[in-house]
Amino acid sequence: MVSAELKRLAADNSAIRAMFEEGNNLALKYGRENVYDFSLGNPNFAPPEAVKKAIIDVLDTEDSMFVHGYMSNTGYADVRKAVADDLNSRFGTSFGTDNIIMTVGAAGGLNVMFKTLLDPGDEVIAFSPFFVEYGNYVRNFCGVLKIVPTDPETFQIDPEALAAAVTERTRAVIINNPNNPTGVIYTEQALAGLAAALERRSAEIGHPIYVLSDEPYRELAYDGKKVPWLTKIYRNTIVAYSWSKSLSLPGERIGYLAIPSEIDDFEEVSTGASISNRVLGFVNAPSLMQRVVMRCLKESTDIGAYARNRTLLYTELSKLGFECVRPDGAFYMWVKSPEPDEKSFVAKAKEELILFVPGSSFAWPGYVRIAYCVSPDMIKRSLPAFERLAARYGLQKKETV
Amino acid sequence: MVSAELKRLAADNSAIRAMFEEGNNLALKYGRENVYDFSLGNPNFAPPEAVKKAIIDVLDTEDSMFVHGYMSNTGYADVRKAVADDLNSRFGTSFGTDNIIMTVGAAGGLNVMFKTLLDPGDEVIAFSPFFVEYGNYVRNFCGVLKIVPTDPETFQIDPEALAAAVTERTRAVIINNPNNPTGVIYTEQALAGLAAALERRSAEIGHPIYVLSDEPYRELAYDGKKVPWLTKIYRNTIVAYSWSKSLSLPGERIGYLAIPSEIDDFEEVSTGASISNRVLGFVNAPSLMQRVVMRCLKESTDIGAYARNRTLLYTELSKLGFECVRPDGAFYMWVKSPEPDEKSFVAKAKEELILFVPGSSFAWPGYVRIAYCVSPDMIKRSLPAFERLAARYGLQKKETV
Repeated sequence: MVSAELKRLAADNSAIRAMFEEGNNLALKYGRENVYDFSLGNPNFAPPEAVKKAIIDVLDTEDSMFVHGYMSNTGYADVRKAVADDLNSRFGTSFGTDNIIMTVGAAGGLNVMFKTLLDPGDEVIAFSPFFVEYGNYVRNFCGVLKIVPTDPETFQIDPEALAAAVTERTRAVIINNPNNPTGVIYTEQALAGLAAALERRSAEIGHPIYVLSDEPYRELAYDGKKVPWLTKIYRNTIVAYSWSKSLSLPGERIGYLAIPSEIDDFEEVSTGASISNRVLGFVNAPSLMQRVVMRCLKESTDIGAYARNRTLLYTELSKLGFECVRPDGAFYMWVKSPEPDEKSFVAKAKEELILFVPGSSFAWPGYVRIAYCVSPDMIKRSLPAFERLAARYGLQKKETV
Repeated sequence: MVSAELKRLAADNSAIRAMFEEGNNLALKYGRENVYDFSLGNPNFAPPEAVKKAIIDVLDTEDSMFVHGYMSNTGYADVRKAVADDLNSRFGTSFGTDNIIMTVGAAGGLNVMFKTLLDPGDEVIAFSPFFVEYGNYVRNFCGVLKIVPTDPETFQIDPEALAAAVTERTRAVIINNPNNPTGVIYTEQALAGLAAALERRSAEIGHPIYVLSDEPYRELAYDGKKVPWLTKIYRNTIVAYSWSKSLSLPGERIGYLAIPSEIDDFEEVSTGASISNRVLGFVNAPSLMQRVVMRCLKESTDIGAYARNRTLLYTELSKLGFECVRPDGAFYMWVKSPEPDEKSFVAKAKEELILFVPGSSFAWPGYVRIAYCVSPDMIKRSLPAFERLAARYGLQKKETV
């Protein structure tokens, strides 16, 4: 008695649940401290103390009817202004209040944009490997997801492949920068290629192609690397952001859409997004948390801790002989399976009580995703298990990486 | 460059915005204290002090990574258990943790259920007059809203009209009890009639018809009247609730779905709802607020204040000769227009600086909705303006009502 789409989703879901339950069963059998769970993208570092201070400040200084009440569907004007100013100071943009819509996380923002843009049958392009939920978001509105592989060496966007995938029905392209699952930051050069390809193809098909840039990992960039700000490179860009990672607030569902005035049909698209926010049942981003993030725009969780995890894991696994993509951002490491069928690799890892996710869950078999948003201690404790796993494949150790 | 559906929604939206801006313009011209705005369903009473205490208690006693972190898409197990226990103690139900899904308000919960249940072209029945957003929620998933008028004298559900409207494509019925815009509470008798009609028609069409009972106004019931608990009357009932009204937290977007184990295909429907909550981009109900409402299940805003507003407004407007439906619940009064075209009545009221909403916005012309979730002082100050309005129609005053 559920819809056909939900029947399909339920089948996928039971696979995920089975993996999760298997992890729980291992923890029950061997003790949770002996199971090395790298499967979840769930921040394992606390929010900065400033979050608690901000909540108490809001409660102590602002009227409770205002703090917990309705506001415009787009969010409190002062919060949107503060977010705009912060972006302007960081990226040289000139956003005002009307360019920011507060959303129920980035997932909410992406659904709002797809509801706004897609007629049934319209196409959205994603670059594999990618966060599979994108396909579900597009299908919510009867859109069609088209997958364009990234360069299999660098996992950077391939502009020619993108240009070839555009059709008359292409309405949007979604990118995730830094990327889940690869940890790659798309470079200025790759994004300039994307912009040139889309400008050419937009002109040819006779309507704009919007890029939705999903950036919950923006602040998680290492070695001084910068994540390019795409609205400066490609005019028809809309940014979806969430404080889930940068402030470790994933449960609070607080994010924004930045919609530059320069995009084609700005009025229609931004008004549409505000309406979609309402009719999809979000109505508005949670009110207290809007007022909290406004006070925490300069704050962040301990990014150094993620950087240390990343260096430790990359170095040690590379030394053991695993072929790892060096992560520049996010909290994921993308590792080549030592055997063609990465699901078999995942199964062998599980025998060593190590859990991670097969690449086929990101439309890219032959690799696995290791999430290092975990305690540094767990990484250290897991290394002997990784060493046994490497030994099973006879991997060649390296002295330096 | 927005979808056809959004183009349609934007046209509706500009009508609402025009009304809102007209109100603002009047306030600018005559002073906000001289404009009597009864148009918005926005609670004008503060949340109970217990809400602030609960927030601080959560922050002081629980781990911040737990409080602001991810949990199951259905919500924290202890919160769901507490909500279930509370419902059991009030309504004699036997809900457990698995019967409750925490949602982003009732609007989020309703969208989750429509996503779960509707294939394109499936029909949902609503009783007019009704909250127009229901049509948008149904159309989000390419469903078709069918409207069945209530009894034009009592505004109660007409079971025969309901039975006649059911077709092979009917998947769900949505009711709102107490009702926006009429303030009517659907009686035990009316709901028993609904149950009998749906049981008969479900058997005839060969599949279950689920009732979604949208109950954000449940606690706002006056004169000791009770809002019947529908799962005890009709087995295939799913309840959508929000704390927006009872705790005056409309901006926080916190509510739940209660899905009884007794409904047909419980496992499929409840798992489907959990998945829909995720893929629609809600992911989970805001985490801190989940932990707050768990501590405030016995609390409520000042319902006595709403009751006093309702008695004052009903008595005084009836004395002036207006034909009002006596509200049993919610914070709306449903008033017959003294002329056939209620939009002309709304326009004349505006000349007296009184704002309310035409019944055609609820698919029921000839009436208007007066929202009394306002300050008692504003009601008192508005009475001379209502008296002038009554005089323009030559209404006959009454001594008693």
